[in-house]
Amino acid sequence: LLRAQVVDGLEAKGGEVSARGRAAELGRAYLGLSAKGQRRFLHLLATEFGPRPQDVEAAIKAYEAAHEAPARQAAERALRCSLVSPRSKLLAQFNSLPNGIKFLVDLRAELRAGLDDDPSLRLLDADLRDLLSGWFDIGFLKLERITWRAPAALLEKLAAYEAVHRVRSWQDLKNRLDSDRRFYGFFHPNMPDEPLIFVEVALVSGLADNIQTLLDSGAPADDPARADTAIFYSISNAQRGLAGLSFGGFLIKRVLDDLVRDLPSLKVFATLSPIPGLRMWIEARIAEEGEALLTAGETRALKAAAERAGLEEAPFDELLAGNWHKDEALSNALAPALLRLAARYLLTAREADEPLDRVARLHLSNGARIERLNWLADISPNGLKQSYGIMVNYRYRPADIEKNHEAYRGSGTIAATSAVRGLLGGWSIRGRTRVE
Amino acid sequence: LLRAQVVDGLEAKGGEVSARGRAAELGRAYLGLSAKGQRRFLHLLATEFGPRPQDVEAAIKAYEAAHEAPARQAAERALRCSLVSPRSKLLAQFNSLPNGIKFLVDLRAELRAGLDDDPSLRLLDADLRDLLSGWFDIGFLKLERITWRAPAALLEKLAAYEAVHRVRSWQDLKNRLDSDRRFYGFFHPNMPDEPLIFVEVALVSGLADNIQTLLDSGAPADDPARADTAIFYSISNAQRGLAGLSFGGFLIKRVLDDLVRDLPSLKVFATLSPIPGLRMWIEARIAEEGEALLTAGETRALKAAAERAGLEEAPFDELLAGNWHKDEALSNALAPALLRLAARYLLTAREADEPLDRVARLHLSNGARIERLNWLADISPNGLKQSYGIMVNYRYRPADIEKNHEAYRGSGTIAATSAVRGLLGGWSIRGRTRVE
Amino acid sequence: LLRAQVVDGLEAKGGEVSARGRAAELGRAYLGLSAKGQRRFLHLLATEFGPRPQDVEAAIKAYEAAHEAPARQAAERALRCSLVSPRSKLLAQFNSLPNGIKFLVDLRAELRAGLDDDPSLRLLDADLRDLLSGWFDIGFLKLERITWRAPAALLEKLAAYEAVHRVRSWQDLKNRLDSDRRFYGFFHPNMPDEPLIFVEVALVSGLADNIQTLLDSGAPADDPARADTAIFYSISNAQRGLAGLSFGGFLIKRVLDDLVRDLPSLKVFATLSPIPGLRMWIEARIAEEGEALLTAGETRALKAAAERAGLEEAPFDELLAGNWHKDEALSNALAPALLRLAARYLLTAREADEPLDRVARLHLSNGARIERLNWLADISPNGLKQSYGIMVNYRYRPADIEKNHEAYRGSGTIAATSAVRGLLGGWSIRGRTRVE
Amino acid sequence: LLRAQVVDGLEAKGGEVSARGRAAELGRAYLGLSAKGQRRFLHLLATEFGPRPQDVEAAIKAYEAAHEAPARQAAERALRCSLVSPRSKLLAQFNSLPNGIKFLVDLRAELRAGLDDDPSLRLLDADLRDLLSGWFDIGFLKLERITWRAPAALLEKLAAYEAVHRVRSWQDLKNRLDSDRRFYGFFHPNMPDEPLIFVEVALVSGLADNIQTLLDSGAPADDPARADTAIFYSISNAQRGLAGLSFGGFLIKRVLDDLVRDLPSLKVFATLSPIPGLRMWIEARIAEEGEALLTAGETRALKAAAERAGLEEAPFDELLAGNWHKDEALSNALAPALLRLAARYLLTAREADEPLDRVARLHLSNGARIERLNWLADISPNGLKQSYGIMVNYRYRPADIEKNHEAYRGSGTIAATSAVRGLLGGWSIRGRTRVE
Repeated sequence: LLRAQVVDGLEAKGGEVSARGRAAELGRAYLGLSAKGQRRFLHLLATEFGPRPQDVEAAIKAYEAAHEAPARQAAERALRCSLVSPRSKLLAQFNSLPNGIKFLVDLRAELRAGLDDDPSLRLLDADLRDLLSGWFDIGFLKLERITWRAPAALLEKLAAYEAVHRVRSWQDLKNRLDSDRRFYGFFHPNMPDEPLIFVEVALVSGLADNIQTLLDSGAPADDPARADTAIFYSISNAQRGLAGLSFGGFLIKRVLDDLVRDLPSLKVFATLSPIPGLRMWIEARIAEEGEALLTAGETRALKAAAERAGLEEAPFDELLAGNWHKDEALSNALAPALLRLAARYLLTAREADEPLDRVARLHLSNGARIERLNWLADISPNGLKQSYGIMVNYRYRPADIEKNHEAYRGSGTIAATSAVRGLLGGWSIRGRTRVE
Repeated sequence: LLRAQVVDGLEAKGGEVSARGRAAELGRAYLGLSAKGQRRFLHLLATEFGPRPQDVEAAIKAYEAAHEAPARQAAERALRCSLVSPRSKLLAQFNSLPNGIKFLVDLRAELRAGLDDDPSLRLLDADLRDLLSGWFDIGFLKLERITWRAPAALLEKLAAYEAVHRVRSWQDLKNRLDSDRRFYGFFHPNMPDEPLIFVEVALVSGLADNIQTLLDSGAPADDPARADTAIFYSISNAQRGLAGLSFGGFLIKRVLDDLVRDLPSLKVFATLSPIPGLRMWIEARIAEEGEALLTAGETRALKAAAERAGLEEAPFDELLAGNWHKDEALSNALAPALLRLAARYLLTAREADEPLDRVARLHLSNGARIERLNWLADISPNGLKQSYGIMVNYRYRPADIEKNHEAYRGSGTIAATSAVRGLLGGWSIRGRTRVE
Repeated sequence: LLRAQVVDGLEAKGGEVSARGRAAELGRAYLGLSAKGQRRFLHLLATEFGPRPQDVEAAIKAYEAAHEAPARQAAERALRCSLVSPRSKLLAQFNSLPNGIKFLVDLRAELRAGLDDDPSLRLLDADLRDLLSGWFDIGFLKLERITWRAPAALLEKLAAYEAVHRVRSWQDLKNRLDSDRRFYGFFHPNMPDEPLIFVEVALVSGLADNIQTLLDSGAPADDPARADTAIFYSISNAQRGLAGLSFGGFLIKRVLDDLVRDLPSLKVFATLSPIPGLRMWIEARIAEEGEALLTAGETRALKAAAERAGLEEAPFDELLAGNWHKDEALSNALAPALLRLAARYLLTAREADEPLDRVARLHLSNGARIERLNWLADISPNGLKQSYGIMVNYRYRPADIEKNHEAYRGSGTIAATSAVRGLLGGWSIRGRTRVE
Repeated sequence: LLRAQVVDGLEAKGGEVSARGRAAELGRAYLGLSAKGQRRFLHLLATEFGPRPQDVEAAIKAYEAAHEAPARQAAERALRCSLVSPRSKLLAQFNSLPNGIKFLVDLRAELRAGLDDDPSLRLLDADLRDLLSGWFDIGFLKLERITWRAPAALLEKLAAYEAVHRVRSWQDLKNRLDSDRRFYGFFHPNMPDEPLIFVEVALVSGLADNIQTLLDSGAPADDPARADTAIFYSISNAQRGLAGLSFGGFLIKRVLDDLVRDLPSLKVFATLSPIPGLRMWIEARIAEEGEALLTAGETRALKAAAERAGLEEAPFDELLAGNWHKDEALSNALAPALLRLAARYLLTAREADEPLDRVARLHLSNGARIERLNWLADISPNGLKQSYGIMVNYRYRPADIEKNHEAYRGSGTIAATSAVRGLLGGWSIRGRTRVE
């Protein structure tokens, strides 16, 4: 049934107006399908409605036959057209549905959830990505400051989308919108009730070293005009259907510009960021390097602390499995080793020539530098689980952003303070950490 | 100098944020150039920053080498990417300029003005058209009703853009926004002060047969709730930079839907349209067919009227050159011949299998039918000049729109009333005029 | 100190612009005072800045001396001016403070909280009431429909102001704004973030008889287009500083108009209202009338039920003190007596010729009739405490509103269904209950 | 008929909701009357629905009988209530009509137009003034900046209301809204499409001395950021129905504050004002003082110029009747005398202890000083007619406004520069001109 409708939707008969009408019908039919029916429809689109090979091959032949300028270019254009899949054209027409663009964003989210089960969907995913990438061009997005005066329906969504530090209650959310906070999001004009990405900023005195303090909704608001530091403590992408489109860098830049203009007393702009891949990386290092991972001094200190804690002598990884952060002596003994390994992770662990840590990738490619590592900065279960409670400040110094950014892009150089670099200790840095 | 900047703008170094920054600088530099400098810049873009042949050829090879499904599709995609010109990428980045999308629309308008002098710009024009076509997708446009409460700055633009019946004064414009009128336009969210296309509608009793009456700003407003007919008397495209994107059909459909919903007393929806190509076509016919163009009866009647008017016997085309419309007898004698020829023009004159008349093309492809020809309907100099003062009503009957549209698209059938068809008289219609 | 400022503020020197400036300063000084200082300031205003007796007496003399028309009227006007207190003029000038009108509303709320301690404030209260009464004229108020898209800051206030059925959570509030609900408030243009009064409506099938069901936030939303009944289940005044200004009648009328227009399927408009004074009145009756309050049949039934419940024979009022509503037999035995007494209370208990119950006064004076009494309709602690869980539906029949209203105003007639009147049983109605 | 409706509208029967309903009906009936019928209705209201004498007298008796505090104050209040006329209550209720407040403003405009014919309307006018004075309290008004992006419907009204320098065309109006101009108005929230008063400001370099230059719509816009002087060149009240309520001082103050904040380069704030009463005053002086009005030197110079101009010797007032401003020599000869008399007029001519000139009253009471007299500053027919083309700059020096204002209010002192004062020459100033 649907196949017939798709074929019908793609046929050239009728003009644009009626083509849109048929696409809208098809869209409504899709929404009426079961989850299984929807997957089947997507599979159909992905496998049967790509560019037609015979058209492509004919266009290649024509291209190769054309040598002189105008004919060549016409052929070039014809070849490009032959490669635009019929399904892309159909997808574009869904834009005329009420909330059509959100329909497509959600369709891609749905589709991506099925990628593992049905790899043929990757083609469709790529087509959709191309389409959405044009429509969500940064030039169309609006930066909006969100306050407690925003619609409850929007705030409810922000709370649901917050991916870094879960919003626990309306009171928690209200605290994040208080006078000593700033909350910004990017919006598309055709999706006014849906944030694309948003960032939460705290206006404080001195570089924040602890997320619990920032999220304490009982604390009174500070006077924003007296703050000297803006801490970006959470950045969340809100639309799974826009995966692969990167808004983060633009958002940070625009918010920095806004803050510099509005609050001249601000001198320091930095994040308080998680290190999501640290624990997994350390566990891999333990498995691989074993005892050799720690220095002799670190091993000694840990042994002593374990004894004092009445623990039988336990290897590093067993200590880390327990509630070590509640035992001050044990925690103090672990700190030097873990901070050293965190610095090693951030400064040296790479994949495909980029930092292994995805948050590090975002900020370093935007021109930030690694400013400070913070011990016991996030002792929530999640914080302990992903990075032993360690967090990092990435600092944006307006004068250095461009320079850092280009050094990072050009030669992969990671900007870091000498304090952070110093944590590496004996570890010899492979190449490219710049010292400030 | 600019070449270096373009190269710089296109180089991969740096991320998207800084690429945008560089594009913005380039855009500002462009705006600072003289008209000549701007043309040179456009020529440069058109000729030096197309797809790189070596990349395209390599991608073709890879495509031809890949036979199995996933590799084949990856190659397909890579080939498509190789065909996206560097200049397209750069143009897209201008969207981040303040009013970036208007910048691009105006840039294309500028460019098109230079097409005749510099044919190489056609490539750039096509690239820009593709880019704008995605961004001005109908799904993004907003239909807005424009009233006398609209910003003066917007009304001033509408008056300047009106292309069919010139706006003579603010009073004239106010009359077109009166309670017995409707004025609608399409707007893009990033160009809120700029209409893309707009249509003017008069709410009247009975099918309007005369544009002077409609434009008489001294006439009192009728009660819109009592009108039975909506006359679309002017449709103007406002942006030369969007040439080739067709919004007209969508606009008419949306306005029809709105009127049907809001004013249930309306029974008839029709245009009062110019016939811009009629005179030129008749003059060509005279040159080609000579005397044979008129029937014997027509020739007789004209001769008699010419005599009565004290004119020496004058051939048809000389009669038409004078002030015949002020001489009632002469005018009456000319009417049958000119109306017959107008019907022949609208029903039979074709180019590339489409009606020769561009206004006819718009309405017939949208599903209207030719309802009535109106004698002395526009005796302004322009009306006389383009169509001997004849105007035509295209009527949109909601129940027939789809059917007419498909018949037109499928077999080229032109819908017309039997009254209009009857005007053809002895003339045998070549094929495809449908009779109602 | 303040006295000097008030005197200064009231002195005629300078024009209006500088008088406003001085008033603003005084307002800021007031806001900086301690609660005690503020009371002292209010006392000062109330006691020292009334109309000047000598001026009033002089004006009376002049009035009595003037007999002829124009002189008489000038004297009349002069007399009225002499009676406008200097403090009124000062209060009016506070309107120029940022949020000046809210300042005055809050000042009156503050002042009224101190009326018992300082009766001299009554004068000031009356002056303020007169001033606010003009400024909050119903013609200035805007009816707004409030949805889940309203600002969180506003919703938070609505939750705090809800006086009838406490809002327990954001989920509870969201439920009250669901698609099968309507939530309307009156707002003043100078206090856009502050509701003055608001009403909550449920769209249901059949007359609601139970508040727990309406407030169950787990229940799915019904389709509002299918509902036949609109239940007004909560009306709350939000500003204590506007006590004595009655917006309720206007609000109900405007909301009725809106609902009739928007949802043509609605046939019945009624409240589900508390009976706040019922228990207190019954307890007074018990104290006064003792055994005679119940009929023989009621007494017998209660005795039997008490025995079955294993209770020693207990008099009526002791039974009512316990958890009787959880014992079905006991509850069934109590129902006839309590419903009879509730009907007697609503239909006959009066004070100063108006119904004793304040909610009854609101709805009856607006033209509603007493439609039905509902047993076990609100078994929350508060519902049991104020009315033994009984609630009442007041029904607004558009065709009868005017008639009921005038009968109520004219002769004190209370409109009620015969079913409700029937509950009175042997009780002879003193005069004026109209039967439908 | 109407009398019955008024009586009905005023009767206490029914509550506020139905009273409003009846007032609305009455309002609609009024709007349906002929002009004559409306006058009759107003006369009826004015003469028959004032305070009831018997009520007033009873209240006076009660007041005189009450001696102790609480009783006395209650009596005071009751007396005040007895003096509030029934017609005032009715007028207030018209506020519930759609556009009710505009209805009342227009009703007062209508009424004031009839004051001369029917003096009894003065009572009604005073009542309406009191009512509107409360409702148009400055605290409710919004200052709005008006630009070319304002609704055409609003701009059309501004052009119609401009009372100082007539708006000649849309181009003229657009020029007054250009980037080197500022245009501000006060608006009431219930009359959003109607300005109450507005002021036009030009941003220029140096104190403007000529209105023709300012109003030249062909002149290019200056860069507002480089201007050092803001010239208030037109202030117009827009609502005749608000006569007697003074918004001008507040408007000037608010606009000054805005300009100081937004354009720090502005150093001088001044008007370029007409002197509407000058010619009439000089003509009266000529009639009274004859020859003695001029000094011997002035007389000599005039005589010589008249001779050179080929005129027979003409007395001063005959010279002034002709086209003297086009004859440079004659104009030069007249200047000293006319400027001297203009200074005398502004500095000394008083009525009821206030400056005779109404524009001077406005600015001097607001704290401005007379800065400079400008010769041939407005040679339009109107400018010549009212003040022989002379205009005056009143200058607002932020630091002196308060001081000037208080000196003016306190002792009637008129602030003026020594240059202006110097023009008086031999004329001895009676008392109170302050010299800067």
